Amino acid sequence: MATPDAYETLLDEYKRASNVSSASGVLSWDQQVTMPEGGTPARSKQLSTLSAVHHDIITGDTVADALAELEDADLTPEQAASVREIRREHERASAVPRDLVEQLSEASSDALPAWEQAREDDDFDHFAPHLETLVELRREYANEIDPDADPYAVLFADYEPYLDLSKAEAVLEELRDRLVPLVAAIQASDADLATPFDGEYSPEKQESVSRDLLDDLGYDWDRGRLDTSSHPFTSGNQFDTRITTRFQPEDPLDSIMSTVHEYGHAQYNLGLPREAFGTPLGDSRDLTVHESQSRFWENHVGRSEAFWDRHAGTLADAFDDDLSARDVYEAANQVYPDNLIRVEADELTYHMHIILRFELERDLISGDLAVEDVPEAWNEKMEEYLDVTPETDSEGCLQDIHWSHGNFGYFPTYSLGSVLAAQLDHTMREDLDVDALVRNGDFAAIREWLGERIHQHGQRYTTPELVEEATGEAFTADYFLDYAESKYEALYDL
Amino acid sequence: MATPDAYETLLDEYKRASNVSSASGVLSWDQQVTMPEGGTPARSKQLSTLSAVHHDIITGDTVADALAELEDADLTPEQAASVREIRREHERASAVPRDLVEQLSEASSDALPAWEQAREDDDFDHFAPHLETLVELRREYANEIDPDADPYAVLFADYEPYLDLSKAEAVLEELRDRLVPLVAAIQASDADLATPFDGEYSPEKQESVSRDLLDDLGYDWDRGRLDTSSHPFTSGNQFDTRITTRFQPEDPLDSIMSTVHEYGHAQYNLGLPREAFGTPLGDSRDLTVHESQSRFWENHVGRSEAFWDRHAGTLADAFDDDLSARDVYEAANQVYPDNLIRVEADELTYHMHIILRFELERDLISGDLAVEDVPEAWNEKMEEYLDVTPETDSEGCLQDIHWSHGNFGYFPTYSLGSVLAAQLDHTMREDLDVDALVRNGDFAAIREWLGERIHQHGQRYTTPELVEEATGEAFTADYFLDYAESKYEALYDL
Repeated sequence: MATPDAYETLLDEYKRASNVSSASGVLSWDQQVTMPEGGTPARSKQLSTLSAVHHDIITGDTVADALAELEDADLTPEQAASVREIRREHERASAVPRDLVEQLSEASSDALPAWEQAREDDDFDHFAPHLETLVELRREYANEIDPDADPYAVLFADYEPYLDLSKAEAVLEELRDRLVPLVAAIQASDADLATPFDGEYSPEKQESVSRDLLDDLGYDWDRGRLDTSSHPFTSGNQFDTRITTRFQPEDPLDSIMSTVHEYGHAQYNLGLPREAFGTPLGDSRDLTVHESQSRFWENHVGRSEAFWDRHAGTLADAFDDDLSARDVYEAANQVYPDNLIRVEADELTYHMHIILRFELERDLISGDLAVEDVPEAWNEKMEEYLDVTPETDSEGCLQDIHWSHGNFGYFPTYSLGSVLAAQLDHTMREDLDVDALVRNGDFAAIREWLGERIHQHGQRYTTPELVEEATGEAFTADYFLDYAESKYEALYDL
Repeated sequence: MATPDAYETLLDEYKRASNVSSASGVLSWDQQVTMPEGGTPARSKQLSTLSAVHHDIITGDTVADALAELEDADLTPEQAASVREIRREHERASAVPRDLVEQLSEASSDALPAWEQAREDDDFDHFAPHLETLVELRREYANEIDPDADPYAVLFADYEPYLDLSKAEAVLEELRDRLVPLVAAIQASDADLATPFDGEYSPEKQESVSRDLLDDLGYDWDRGRLDTSSHPFTSGNQFDTRITTRFQPEDPLDSIMSTVHEYGHAQYNLGLPREAFGTPLGDSRDLTVHESQSRFWENHVGRSEAFWDRHAGTLADAFDDDLSARDVYEAANQVYPDNLIRVEADELTYHMHIILRFELERDLISGDLAVEDVPEAWNEKMEEYLDVTPETDSEGCLQDIHWSHGNFGYFPTYSLGSVLAAQLDHTMREDLDVDALVRNGDFAAIREWLGERIHQHGQRYTTPELVEEATGEAFTADYFLDYAESKYEALYDL
């Protein structure tokens, strides 16, 4: 089949946009990892210019004309997938007037320091007017993109474009319905899991453990780095994907688990096809799929007994501690229902934190919840789901940065990613003896499986199609819930 | 005076271009300092897109129309200076056809690995055809910009736009005429300067010395960093300027001198007016002036006896060595005429290396020298100026990267910078007791003097105007030659 000229034009122009946005990614990594503090004013201007340049290319006539020409063109499935993704991005970007984009950008620039101050002072009222503005602007934004759709569904689609919000909502409800009683049972049990870590663990020793684990997992240092930042993250593409971690002196498992988590994100980027760099087929699917990769490695490998059979000794050597595999396994799977902070939550209660945020932000956008009522609603839900009440808003509704960025609809993808990770794990175990591979350090077989099922496809498939391709089934919460119940019932003798 | 709208439009558009190009600067820094090796393919594409975006903005209608409208506008001197700089950049960029720009970029991409290979194999013939192509393309490039001018003068103006080539040439001739005999006299003398460094000096200890010196010089770590790279360089703007160094185990003065040199470059960037960021008034003047700042700190501070009175102890402590101020001073000022490598040359013979390259590249561009004759011409000039002949082309005409980048006309600015540094030093000493300040570590007074005379002006003045502003005289080689002769005659008992 001859490739239409318009397709080549479209792809070239898209690559330009994509190069600009991956350049922005490097600047953001630098800002969080290496930039001296004083660099902020210059960096903000560089990033905002690049973002405007990207927007101009994506919404420009070259892209618009090529897309129009390709409306009924005869394309291969791969070409059609590229066009689908570019068209979607073009249409969404074109739908939002430039002055609304600027208002949003200004409002979140103003909101960020206000949120920081409010959190420091435990003063929600200081942040409330900013949150009010951001909620209103996001409603307008959703309305510009699709005036007939539920605004929250439109926002959610910024992060997860192909999974219906109703499907996502059903999954989250299932999680709530089965995890709330599981967590309650754990709270009521008198099982006593090991807590082998006490004292202080130096950043140097923690870093050396993280590097050893990454070596063993097969992280490609020729295309990656490990650094530290205030919040761990992963950034990059198939040629260069870097991860960060952070070190809590009293909790070495925090950095270890975050390293393994970010390794999963990195592995996805590094497994994207190189020849498709800068095009949708060389880019990762959206946040649910990305989070499934990090959660797979974190939870199904890093929190497994097999992993600690292999690596308790690595920790014992580095920390000069007496650590058994079983003790570390138990420590890595402790459930702490009285923890108030999402980013410190365990594998189970994490989802209660997400569901709470999802329910609140959905109601904020629909107007069913007023901004001023957020603290009370937050605390009530904490009580309902986790039987604990924050004493301050700093430990409650002010703890996350997302809303101050004007990001509503992002949180659910964290839980959906865990759900998908378990579905992939279930399917993988039909082909591979995962525990034996982990115990033997044969991670290549696992990497290759994920590479074939997920990474190599880029954005060839929509999320639901990709889940079907990879697992032979539709997206479902069943495997995650079965996994969670059986694992934690065993751990806590329920 | 009311600011014409066209001026605001022009400046906003120029800031966009400038933000894109400073973003490129961050990407290049990252490539040389932090990027994992495998990242090259993505980085090349990002940089080439940003460079094209920059070119499109500078040559675009918005800039062209605003410049046309401002042709006879009533502007303040500062506004007129901005317009002068933007017009110059616009005209030069617009003069060169896009396909010639691309040919040049491709030819240097091809030339770089060929040069690396040729240098490794000591095989000039492998590089020669690439050099041939680059010379031809640069002739075409010069011809597009100004068909009536000497092509080498046009190329030189890419690096030093406002100093006439004839003036530069006269200065370099004076240097040759007075330094060749000075170096010969040093070669003939039997003075025996101290060589107090032997053994191996660990990178950690060398780095700690560099950091201590930067602390003492007053480097603003809130707006800077020190890292390592294969060749030391400085990159950044008034909010964030970073320097690099490298460590030779057997020669600790190499990293120390390069740190002080790069500190001078950094100080210039950091002293540019913040409110003018992204405009010509917030950008540094060209390479001669930039090099004058690094050479001032390197040669007139870092190689002074006063500096080593202050800092011999810093080295003695770090290296646990017995080092007197006089010994380190002598070691920092050794002249090595038999050294073949420019980047390892001392303060005097350095200029012989530059003059040689200048004469060869000028003749290459004019056609008076054929590419195949470069090795012979190189060796003859080495013999003539330094009384030494390279045994291989790797240590001769293949040692520098510049020509493989297609950069002809760059080398002279290195010597011109040293010359200007000495002129500034002479003027400064009319106001300040520089040696006493250095001995007491009162570097702030020196920084402020340079800030007022040079840094704060950005591109407000052309290079000759700036030299006049700062020193009250036209650019001249006299002070440099007097300084060099009196310093080295004393050191070598001539």
